[in-house]
Amino acid sequence: MITINENYLKLKAGYLFPEIGRRTRTFQQAHPDAEIIRLGIGDVTLPLPGAVIEAFHGAVDEMADAATFKGYGPEQGYEFLIKAVIENDYQSRGVELAEDEVFVSDGSKCDTSNIQEIFSLNAKVAMTDPVYPVYVDTNVMAGRTGEGGENGCYEGIVYLACTPENNFTPAPPKEPVDLIYLCYPNNPTGAVATKEVLKQWVDYARENKALILFDGAYEAFITEAEIPHSIYEIPGAKEVAIEFRSFSKTAGFTGTRCAYTVIPHEVKAYTQAGRAVEVNPLWNRRHTTKFNGVSYPVQVAAAATYTDQGKKQVRQLVDYYMENAKLIRTQLSEFGYSVYGGVNAPYIWLQTPDNMGSWEFFDKLLAEAYVVGTPGAGFGPAGEGFFRLSAFGDHSNIQTALERIGKL
Amino acid sequence: MITINENYLKLKAGYLFPEIGRRTRTFQQAHPDAEIIRLGIGDVTLPLPGAVIEAFHGAVDEMADAATFKGYGPEQGYEFLIKAVIENDYQSRGVELAEDEVFVSDGSKCDTSNIQEIFSLNAKVAMTDPVYPVYVDTNVMAGRTGEGGENGCYEGIVYLACTPENNFTPAPPKEPVDLIYLCYPNNPTGAVATKEVLKQWVDYARENKALILFDGAYEAFITEAEIPHSIYEIPGAKEVAIEFRSFSKTAGFTGTRCAYTVIPHEVKAYTQAGRAVEVNPLWNRRHTTKFNGVSYPVQVAAAATYTDQGKKQVRQLVDYYMENAKLIRTQLSEFGYSVYGGVNAPYIWLQTPDNMGSWEFFDKLLAEAYVVGTPGAGFGPAGEGFFRLSAFGDHSNIQTALERIGKL
Repeated sequence: MITINENYLKLKAGYLFPEIGRRTRTFQQAHPDAEIIRLGIGDVTLPLPGAVIEAFHGAVDEMADAATFKGYGPEQGYEFLIKAVIENDYQSRGVELAEDEVFVSDGSKCDTSNIQEIFSLNAKVAMTDPVYPVYVDTNVMAGRTGEGGENGCYEGIVYLACTPENNFTPAPPKEPVDLIYLCYPNNPTGAVATKEVLKQWVDYARENKALILFDGAYEAFITEAEIPHSIYEIPGAKEVAIEFRSFSKTAGFTGTRCAYTVIPHEVKAYTQAGRAVEVNPLWNRRHTTKFNGVSYPVQVAAAATYTDQGKKQVRQLVDYYMENAKLIRTQLSEFGYSVYGGVNAPYIWLQTPDNMGSWEFFDKLLAEAYVVGTPGAGFGPAGEGFFRLSAFGDHSNIQTALERIGKL
Repeated sequence: MITINENYLKLKAGYLFPEIGRRTRTFQQAHPDAEIIRLGIGDVTLPLPGAVIEAFHGAVDEMADAATFKGYGPEQGYEFLIKAVIENDYQSRGVELAEDEVFVSDGSKCDTSNIQEIFSLNAKVAMTDPVYPVYVDTNVMAGRTGEGGENGCYEGIVYLACTPENNFTPAPPKEPVDLIYLCYPNNPTGAVATKEVLKQWVDYARENKALILFDGAYEAFITEAEIPHSIYEIPGAKEVAIEFRSFSKTAGFTGTRCAYTVIPHEVKAYTQAGRAVEVNPLWNRRHTTKFNGVSYPVQVAAAATYTDQGKKQVRQLVDYYMENAKLIRTQLSEFGYSVYGGVNAPYIWLQTPDNMGSWEFFDKLLAEAYVVGTPGAGFGPAGEGFFRLSAFGDHSNIQTALERIGKL
């Protein structure tokens, strides 16, 4: 008899975005003339940069000619892309990497989901609250947790509350944990980690033989000079951290799909008996066995973001969204809201007025301003009383949305 | 202390293709003038069809304009592609499917790797020998096996030997198994399953509450009218089978990456307590949590294989490779070899002469005919004494290779 992985039965239904959709549709049906502005989902809206489009077309043409056609490529990604990544994203920040330390993939969602497979089911997992639900759900599926509680938390996971008091950058826990998910610039809070904050984590991981999974998907939105762009800017981090990066938000690749993961050879994990094992070859075995590489034209398109032209155009995309972020942040502050994020991240995290619940504020904003955002409670219990607005929208829509919010 | 998934330590090193590469390089260095012809790896060589290229370019242009730009798409794939799949690959064979029974992905390697996650670690797994190594390795990684033996087999897996005596289509085992990997047309043997053979399996699965994972990646190469193209042509199969299909070999997508998996709502698995659970929503949860959909331009390109023009051009690709297969098969027969496959599959499976070992024959063919093939033993112990030649090469190269083999 074929039996299922019963850990799946512990999963809560994907509640947040379906529920947002349901409430929005219900309101729209009742108010067909309301021009709803969506600042909820974190998806980009601007088209791919010209340099990317040009390279993409060129690679498609290569696929049309037997002399330049590409069949199976290296599962880890083409050398031309890996070299561009190392030179532009790491050497420029003083970090040296070998080519076999970078693994190209079709998305950070996949990589942050799949990475846990190479570690023991006994690993004690820590993550921030609020958090990107994928980190949680993939550990539930694997069986590293007990049942989920009423508040959406699962037994066995160590949750680290992100609050205004700790600048949304909680300190390492007192208890020892093994696998730590960090995301800076953060989704959903928009917080960033200073070098001092990251150093605390690197020191903790080295002392406890823990491993940090560092999600840097929003790295391109950092504007303040002193904020580190990579965890490897912290001495010792190469021994204890895996870093995830994506072209999705940086260059508009959410529908085009390209990302990468960095695993330095120094990163070690252990057998139960305590023998140190290099993590890089474990991931290499996983990646080459279960994945067949990213589409060749997509890799060529991604590499074009590193050309002079590409870099300029990507900067323009990011600047456009960060103009939006600035507008949302400053206007909401003027309206009297307590506002966080939006300086080094495309997300604004605001405290709901009058201790209103996240979903109550959602309903109010929808009903009175025709604006859709994301209730903070959907990302975890510490998100209750907060609300996420995304800066990925159209400039004039955002202005209109803000005018309406101002009239509340 | 972060500990590793120690199941990874059971894995044998990826031996087959690296070893072929090593021996080939050594020979080439010793004989720099030898013009080596590679009929080993199963990768396509002809460029993408014109209709695919045209659609691909069109979709890249859509990504250049904010009005037509696509961000995140449905993780399960776009409706336009799913509809084309159902109409062309299934309705045309008398099989009805709902749109939410088809999941678009970036490769059958990923899907056949990942599908096991939704089933219990206690599932008893059966697979053919010789076999595509990915089926084995992903179950080893998950922890469904014991240690690997000298012959490459792992404790706990039920291996079903494919031999000339059973037409390389072994019958279901006497013992009950839970999860059965079948691949027809088969890699590496080139064998196909008749309706009678598949019916045996469907009946077995229904009697034993087992589940069949049916890999149909080579479906397009079927030429004989009576051979089923989908396992769902067998009555009752929708209750017990998941089917995998790919654009890789059909339309030259090995470097472009698109595939799909079919899970009818009728397919059930069970809790330990014996309660029946629909498998489709489990996979949907896995797919939407850990995957972000296939690149939009790639999905548009894949859909173009179903246009009138696209179908004609895909047929031409397949015919070209099948001409090669016919040539290899008939010539080798004339030379006195016992030859299998190559009629409904792009692989020819030949018995080595004089009971020669697979690797011994590899060395002889390389040294005396400058031809590289794949030793059958690399796919499992029942492959010993056999050898795989691929029909995916250039026509004139294959003719030259055959002339040289004829002179042995």
